Amino acid sequence: MKIAVVFGGISFEHEISIVSSIAMKDVLKNELIYIFVDKNRELYEIPSSKINSKLFSSGEYSKFDRVYFKKDGFYKVAGLFKKEQNIDFDIVLNLSHGGDGEDGILASMFDFYNIPFVGPRTEACVVSSNKFITKGYAQSVDVKTLSYKYFTKNDKIEIDEFPAIIKPVKLGSSIGVAIVKTKEELSYALDVAFEFDDAIIVEPFISGVKEYNLAGTKIAGEFVFSIIEEPQKADFLDFDKKYLDFSRTSKAKEVDLGEKLNKEIKDSFKNLYNTLFEGSIIRCDFFVVDNEVYLNEINSIPGSMANYLFEDFQTTFEKLVKNLPKKKFIPINYDYVNKIQVAKGK
Amino acid sequence: MKIAVVFGGISFEHEISIVSSIAMKDVLKNELIYIFVDKNRELYEIPSSKINSKLFSSGEYSKFDRVYFKKDGFYKVAGLFKKEQNIDFDIVLNLSHGGDGEDGILASMFDFYNIPFVGPRTEACVVSSNKFITKGYAQSVDVKTLSYKYFTKNDKIEIDEFPAIIKPVKLGSSIGVAIVKTKEELSYALDVAFEFDDAIIVEPFISGVKEYNLAGTKIAGEFVFSIIEEPQKADFLDFDKKYLDFSRTSKAKEVDLGEKLNKEIKDSFKNLYNTLFEGSIIRCDFFVVDNEVYLNEINSIPGSMANYLFEDFQTTFEKLVKNLPKKKFIPINYDYVNKIQVAKGK
Repeated sequence: MKIAVVFGGISFEHEISIVSSIAMKDVLKNELIYIFVDKNRELYEIPSSKINSKLFSSGEYSKFDRVYFKKDGFYKVAGLFKKEQNIDFDIVLNLSHGGDGEDGILASMFDFYNIPFVGPRTEACVVSSNKFITKGYAQSVDVKTLSYKYFTKNDKIEIDEFPAIIKPVKLGSSIGVAIVKTKEELSYALDVAFEFDDAIIVEPFISGVKEYNLAGTKIAGEFVFSIIEEPQKADFLDFDKKYLDFSRTSKAKEVDLGEKLNKEIKDSFKNLYNTLFEGSIIRCDFFVVDNEVYLNEINSIPGSMANYLFEDFQTTFEKLVKNLPKKKFIPINYDYVNKIQVAKGK
Repeated sequence: MKIAVVFGGISFEHEISIVSSIAMKDVLKNELIYIFVDKNRELYEIPSSKINSKLFSSGEYSKFDRVYFKKDGFYKVAGLFKKEQNIDFDIVLNLSHGGDGEDGILASMFDFYNIPFVGPRTEACVVSSNKFITKGYAQSVDVKTLSYKYFTKNDKIEIDEFPAIIKPVKLGSSIGVAIVKTKEELSYALDVAFEFDDAIIVEPFISGVKEYNLAGTKIAGEFVFSIIEEPQKADFLDFDKKYLDFSRTSKAKEVDLGEKLNKEIKDSFKNLYNTLFEGSIIRCDFFVVDNEVYLNEINSIPGSMANYLFEDFQTTFEKLVKNLPKKKFIPINYDYVNKIQVAKGK
């Protein structure tokens, strides 16, 4: 099986997508090729043997073959006779974190061009990448979230409880996120958050809150879970620390929360994954407060695919590839248009 | 201003998209060209003067020029020298109803290829096209919806209150929808609904419930509303009747619900439109039960753009085109990758 890792994209997480994708060389035993989406959304085919992070910062990636989307895959015009040829692969792995990858743009492209892929579908992307929509969705599937307030750029913003945590609704990896300890610190934090997004959510900040991560997927109707990890972290992970997280390949340490919480976390994951996330391997980050489970966030394309949480990532991945969701057949037959034609002819 | 109407697509509403698009010739005074997405997602450029519904049912559309997506627009290889040329237009109007158009696929394509368009963005598509996600979202923005139950294909389905209305979560125009009057009728209706979708919602069916439609948009921060109409309908609109609705171009009759309800309907519209639907003209369909307003559904690409509800659709449309939402600039600068390179070099 040959995997085309699609990464990069117009995203605040462009760089961590590079790191995450390079890590895949150590994670997956399959033959890999890399399709890089640059900051202009031009696509390049990078051979697995040539990939390293410097290739991108130096701009040297642009010496490789330009490719483009077309029905059923990626194509390039190359060779002695400048003929169009298609890029050979069996499956795409979407590893573009944040914008383009996790907001539904690339998922829609794969769908439109009939390209099979591992990763969240368009709906799953939207539900998990916009924190405000995530809140509403979590409530619909009976998963608790911390209380929150939602504001758009022009709203009058009133916050009374401190410390609070300010989050742009659409960004990952803690970008634009700030902990505000007093009312005086609010206005600067809001300015920063609204630099990144037109809408924010504000949650109570609970210092030292316990966080637990669980990754998983659904294969042929059955859930496959990773271990539950308590990630090492400061008050909250800043971009630098999260960045390193994206290159993780060594196994994480399992935490045992006891039967009740273990089950609640897994049940919450199942409810969230639902049918919406089929085709993807996701990581859900939960808080535990007073022995109750709350969703923090859904990572629909987790850093380095959360490989370090799985006992056997390779097998899980390959099984998922063989059981990707199928699209329903939609017949298009012009019955109604014909009916109108007949009616007009009378 | 030259408008490229993009329509068709892989959708149960493929045909009504054709009808809706042809209606635009009577609605918009601008120069129009048509980009047809056929059932294989091949694109064709149809001149406005040549368009009629028979062109599609007969397959004759395929005699027109094939076009394809490319950065900043649509292109074709044509002319004596088979040179690539770009299609001339100022703005796309997304008029693909249902799948592809309203589920975020085409919105993502326009976004990826940097094509300016009137229509819902990817997030707005997902929130409005999946009825289950709509419910959660409506609750988040303080808009009431009827009570409902949500089931996926493999769930044990228990419904106790009849009559009930069964709706596939993702389809528009009443496709797959059934009113179930007794427990005996349930199993057939479920079979039908699950033919169309893997998930359904079940609501109480309120016979003779009053429905009111309001269309609108937000231009430079200000809402522009249509009149409120009480649409003519039977118990619920079947596909045939809704179909005719998509070719409406004559003005609708305003209904006056009194100050309280008029305001509540408009306030609900504002909350739903939020920032998410910026760039689009949508129609929200509300129920009024016991003097309370409930959202029925959000039509993010309403039939014939709900032109018949607006006093001056042309002006509204043109103003919107001049005030489309802008994407935030996302800098991509490789600071972190460079930092790693430096660290490795030491």
